[in-house]
Amino acid sequence: MAEKARLAGVRLRPHFKTHQSAQIGQWFSAEGITSITVSSVEMAHYFSLHGWDDITIAFPLNVLEIGKIRLLAEKINLNLLIENTEAAQILQNEMNLRVGIYLKMDTGYHRTGLNPYKFETINRILDILNRNKSLVFKGFLSHTGHTYEANNTAEIRLRLNDALLKLDSLKQKYAVTYPGIEVSIGDTPSCSICSDFREADELRPGNFVFYDLMMYKLGVCQTDDIAVKMVCPVVSRHLDRGEIVIYGGAIHFSKDYIINKKGVKEFGRVLIVKDDGQVISNDENYLARISQEHGVLKIQPQYFEHFQVGKTVGIIPVHSCLTAHQSSFYLTTEGEKIATMNSPRANF
Amino acid sequence: MAEKARLAGVRLRPHFKTHQSAQIGQWFSAEGITSITVSSVEMAHYFSLHGWDDITIAFPLNVLEIGKIRLLAEKINLNLLIENTEAAQILQNEMNLRVGIYLKMDTGYHRTGLNPYKFETINRILDILNRNKSLVFKGFLSHTGHTYEANNTAEIRLRLNDALLKLDSLKQKYAVTYPGIEVSIGDTPSCSICSDFREADELRPGNFVFYDLMMYKLGVCQTDDIAVKMVCPVVSRHLDRGEIVIYGGAIHFSKDYIINKKGVKEFGRVLIVKDDGQVISNDENYLARISQEHGVLKIQPQYFEHFQVGKTVGIIPVHSCLTAHQSSFYLTTEGEKIATMNSPRANF
Repeated sequence: MAEKARLAGVRLRPHFKTHQSAQIGQWFSAEGITSITVSSVEMAHYFSLHGWDDITIAFPLNVLEIGKIRLLAEKINLNLLIENTEAAQILQNEMNLRVGIYLKMDTGYHRTGLNPYKFETINRILDILNRNKSLVFKGFLSHTGHTYEANNTAEIRLRLNDALLKLDSLKQKYAVTYPGIEVSIGDTPSCSICSDFREADELRPGNFVFYDLMMYKLGVCQTDDIAVKMVCPVVSRHLDRGEIVIYGGAIHFSKDYIINKKGVKEFGRVLIVKDDGQVISNDENYLARISQEHGVLKIQPQYFEHFQVGKTVGIIPVHSCLTAHQSSFYLTTEGEKIATMNSPRANF
Repeated sequence: MAEKARLAGVRLRPHFKTHQSAQIGQWFSAEGITSITVSSVEMAHYFSLHGWDDITIAFPLNVLEIGKIRLLAEKINLNLLIENTEAAQILQNEMNLRVGIYLKMDTGYHRTGLNPYKFETINRILDILNRNKSLVFKGFLSHTGHTYEANNTAEIRLRLNDALLKLDSLKQKYAVTYPGIEVSIGDTPSCSICSDFREADELRPGNFVFYDLMMYKLGVCQTDDIAVKMVCPVVSRHLDRGEIVIYGGAIHFSKDYIINKKGVKEFGRVLIVKDDGQVISNDENYLARISQEHGVLKIQPQYFEHFQVGKTVGIIPVHSCLTAHQSSFYLTTEGEKIATMNSPRANF
């Protein structure tokens, strides 16, 4: 991804909410990355304590956290997202430290953001920001999260390009008054399969650090590209109904699912390791049901022998961001523990 | 619930996985409760550190945690669940401290447990347990979780009674050889609406401490009975599409949902507090979409004025157990903070 950004002449500002780990952050530093994206003030604080000094909090300003935001702005280059006059007004009144401001634009995902043709609101927000010299308008930012709902990679390309056209147009219009403003975009599906980002200055994908079953289903990666699995203890076997019960439930995986080819919910993909080391992974062997701490795997009879009480099984999560968030650490294939911002938990 | 158990002449051994809080545990002590249920070894450890010395870990034995189980068995009266010969064998070989053993029975939920008519397996397990004097067979335990999938309260009653008949029969059969064995049962739906538990000796409901939208939809409680809500900051308003965006997503609520009367997914019920204090709560105002940290509320236009950027909104969760698990503390209506076993997190 770093190479792709270099070739495209854009800044990679990866989203760190996927891994939430200072140690994994260092792998990005090694690739020359110096600026990052996070999804909360708490996460910005965590990474600022680990040497990151250029951070965008890619969530519409939560004005209730203004005190904590001020503490951050004292130490690092901080960028915030604004999408309404109310938040702009509060910042204008209460912020006396330099912060970068992106206007959050809705380019089709319809979750947050201003419609790109609402020039009047954009202008009103910019007018408010202009009254406070600490507030530096940096440009337009969008999350084209509707690429996650695409049916194929062609649709992902279409949605990215549709969004880029709108953002190009905004940049062109406002650069006259605000030279140097930027366009920031970039979700994992489009950043993984596209290479031309038009007038965009910055990409913010996050999930690609691990990928997951959702990305695989979208056609954005292969299962071999997925770099994270949940390892769960086997607690019982029910051959009569083709099911294995694991200690691994909603508190480990969260409850995201894909609808697999048979039209049933799949909460994770089972990795069956044969005696010769060969790994079987297909939609006949999957995490079929999930409650708070139990998971029920559907397993074909011929693979039952690979599941023994007291052993473990590896499962590819549907949504690696949520699964990683709920874990207190990673274990590498070399057996090294990697901490995350959620690590200091009750240990026993 | 304590009163109901007293009247029915059964022990209440409430499941503490719902609240996960030592302080809330004290409210149960005040009602005379002395024995509890938990869902993990870690949770048993936490509550043992807070004075609870009679704990059932209501999860099929995870033999990978045998070391930690031994530490607990040294200190408290610990009950474990077994449902196969493999786990029994491992316990027989590796446990030299007195622990109570329940056989986990499947009375219709089909998640874990032995079929009640598999006498041969039951006998084989008991034979293994008998070879180790530390392993004390306590009786038969079942979780009739299929009451959560009932369509009405009549079905809940049917499912409980169906389960009780099977367990009565087992108790009768095995009490000849093992006098004093017990039957343990009890999910929140059936314990809330039933009062006759036949030959059961123990009830283990947990969710009733808070209830939630799922229990309301089942007809087990009213919205007024629900004792927990998630309070979320409002970050933006989109009147054009009748939506309010909050800071509150899957990492706060988890991703459980109900299908509401209109056939759409509802991830939580919005509480609208009018100026005169009246609370509006209906299926026209709900948490409609959810991603990692964003929530999107569908709100009727006439209530939009009650949602202002920088203010908060209270939302009844669909599944209080998961929502509480993801929170690091509770705040009472008097503003008091209540810690949970998940509290020691990175604070800012």
